[in-house]
Amino acid sequence: MTKNIMQYDTVALDDKNSALVIIDQTQLPNNVEMLHLTEIKDIWEAIYLLKVRGAPAIGVAAAIGVYLSAKKIDINDYDEFYKQFKEAKDYLASSRPTAVNLFWALNRMEKVVLDNADKPVSEIKELLHKEAVLIRDEDVEVCKAIGEYGLTLIKDGYGILTHCNAGQLATVKYGTALAPLHLGAERGMKFKVFTDETRPLLQGIRLSAFELFSNGIDTTVICDNMASQVMKNGWVDAIFVGCDRVAANGDAANKIGTSGVAILAKHYGIPFYVCGPTSTIDMDILSGDDIPIEERKPEEVTEMWYKKRMAPEGVNVYNPAFDVTDHSLITAIITEYGIARAPYDKSLKEIFEKKAAQGKK
Amino acid sequence: MTKNIMQYDTVALDDKNSALVIIDQTQLPNNVEMLHLTEIKDIWEAIYLLKVRGAPAIGVAAAIGVYLSAKKIDINDYDEFYKQFKEAKDYLASSRPTAVNLFWALNRMEKVVLDNADKPVSEIKELLHKEAVLIRDEDVEVCKAIGEYGLTLIKDGYGILTHCNAGQLATVKYGTALAPLHLGAERGMKFKVFTDETRPLLQGIRLSAFELFSNGIDTTVICDNMASQVMKNGWVDAIFVGCDRVAANGDAANKIGTSGVAILAKHYGIPFYVCGPTSTIDMDILSGDDIPIEERKPEEVTEMWYKKRMAPEGVNVYNPAFDVTDHSLITAIITEYGIARAPYDKSLKEIFEKKAAQGKK
Repeated sequence: MTKNIMQYDTVALDDKNSALVIIDQTQLPNNVEMLHLTEIKDIWEAIYLLKVRGAPAIGVAAAIGVYLSAKKIDINDYDEFYKQFKEAKDYLASSRPTAVNLFWALNRMEKVVLDNADKPVSEIKELLHKEAVLIRDEDVEVCKAIGEYGLTLIKDGYGILTHCNAGQLATVKYGTALAPLHLGAERGMKFKVFTDETRPLLQGIRLSAFELFSNGIDTTVICDNMASQVMKNGWVDAIFVGCDRVAANGDAANKIGTSGVAILAKHYGIPFYVCGPTSTIDMDILSGDDIPIEERKPEEVTEMWYKKRMAPEGVNVYNPAFDVTDHSLITAIITEYGIARAPYDKSLKEIFEKKAAQGKK
Repeated sequence: MTKNIMQYDTVALDDKNSALVIIDQTQLPNNVEMLHLTEIKDIWEAIYLLKVRGAPAIGVAAAIGVYLSAKKIDINDYDEFYKQFKEAKDYLASSRPTAVNLFWALNRMEKVVLDNADKPVSEIKELLHKEAVLIRDEDVEVCKAIGEYGLTLIKDGYGILTHCNAGQLATVKYGTALAPLHLGAERGMKFKVFTDETRPLLQGIRLSAFELFSNGIDTTVICDNMASQVMKNGWVDAIFVGCDRVAANGDAANKIGTSGVAILAKHYGIPFYVCGPTSTIDMDILSGDDIPIEERKPEEVTEMWYKKRMAPEGVNVYNPAFDVTDHSLITAIITEYGIARAPYDKSLKEIFEKKAAQGKK
């Protein structure tokens, strides 16, 4: 068995502040390879190719990435510095269109530059370093808090189903949807976890199964289309998934297939929980109808991973990377500031009021 | 583009009455390879390994297979002949536990032996030949009739979603769930068909997409977990699936994932049609609870088709090959004797009364 993945941070800045260090998730579960990335185009590609993925992890990677780019801008003039910073920021923002954390983290970094226009560029670079490290540290705290709130909803011995990977590998540590399981496991609780394999990129079988199993949790992989049977068998007490963007009304974009799992959960009367940091909640978007859905290359469906092409040449392929789960299907949304329940337009507002009262960004 | 698959019979007896001729479906869509099988163990393996699959096609293959075995029994004593026939029959029946057509076809063949105990063995062998050919011919007629009834439920331009393969490749010709589409295409109708890829054996992307596309039908492949999004987009007017065994109350066992598609269809208000010959309907089974569900090897989920293993070593795998769709989720069951609707305990009985009135087995 591989070393416990929980000992590695999924996203980090190296000791010399010169490289973004990530676990290359496209090589899991077969190889645990750490990448040290220094060039912005390599960081863009790592996000685009899902070498680093998961909304919170992408946010941290982008913050570190834009800091590393800014550090290299060898210019003292503020306006020129900001222009080049902005170019780097916009470039990184173009790597994935759906995950709001990417924009949230990059906007936080930009705000540092804008708020300190009166300071020397060298000082701004130091402030950017601090902000990137803060975003990273906050991610760990946030995931722990989500885990604690999530734990209040489950019991020792529960059967849990999850889709895609919203675990340690989607964040810096612990994860969002899987944080309650990892925290519970630390305290000696036992769960029986089912992970949908999550086609076409197989984050469930490659990543969730890998991190849960390596952390000693009883883990069973299933194909996406087996979730109905697993629920019908009475094996699932609760479903935990992550999210890539939540609208003000509680509609939640997450990995393709999540809305189907939510509809099954409703049919079988199983609670369906969406876990995400408040950075994933976009109060400027009223409903899921306004969340852009990334469509990806047909080859991910027809060829990727396989020994040979599986579809006849010339056939059409539809490959949306996300779908939106209607708020009416969601039992609760678990954030680092508490658990929101319907009506979400009210409860999510209260979550943000609590956050603001604590002076958090 | 490959030659139109519709020109081949999926299952046949060769001209010399010495071999079962099938298209090796494990090699599709890349190679169209015809297998000539003469040994019972090769026929058993072809069914077990899904070289021939689909409930109706398995029934025809088993009938031809048991005929070829019987033909080789070089004995004139009836009791000894029957003993060896029965061994061959039981052996073939052990190849797949869920598909009732397998038992239905083998029982029809056994009845020929039992009903003609007074005749010489050589004559019984000729009668077995006739029965196998009749089962084959009836399959073509039955599929055409299902196609005609199915066509009354759809219109030119419809968006249709299907799961697994209940097409030409699951029968001798035309298919069951796909028969309305193939017949409609012959008459110049246009459809936009979505095929779930159907993990883990990929019958949707490999087989349904192949036969639909090769027959000139507009075909789009999706991963199983994308069906919810496709329905939400408003692209699906009706869903057509096959079945492996239907209980007297209308509960229908079919390829794993079918029950999930049915639950989505109900959620989105889309009609969900199950297509199958009456040989697939098992009036001796009161409900789906009594249908045995075949579980298959973990490697089908974790390794098959892939360049390398996709799950961490040691993790649990659940791999049921079928699930049961509750009758409450089924809009109608389409048979060769008409369309049954709820309450199914009544309507299916009427279907069999109609069949009996026509003197059919």
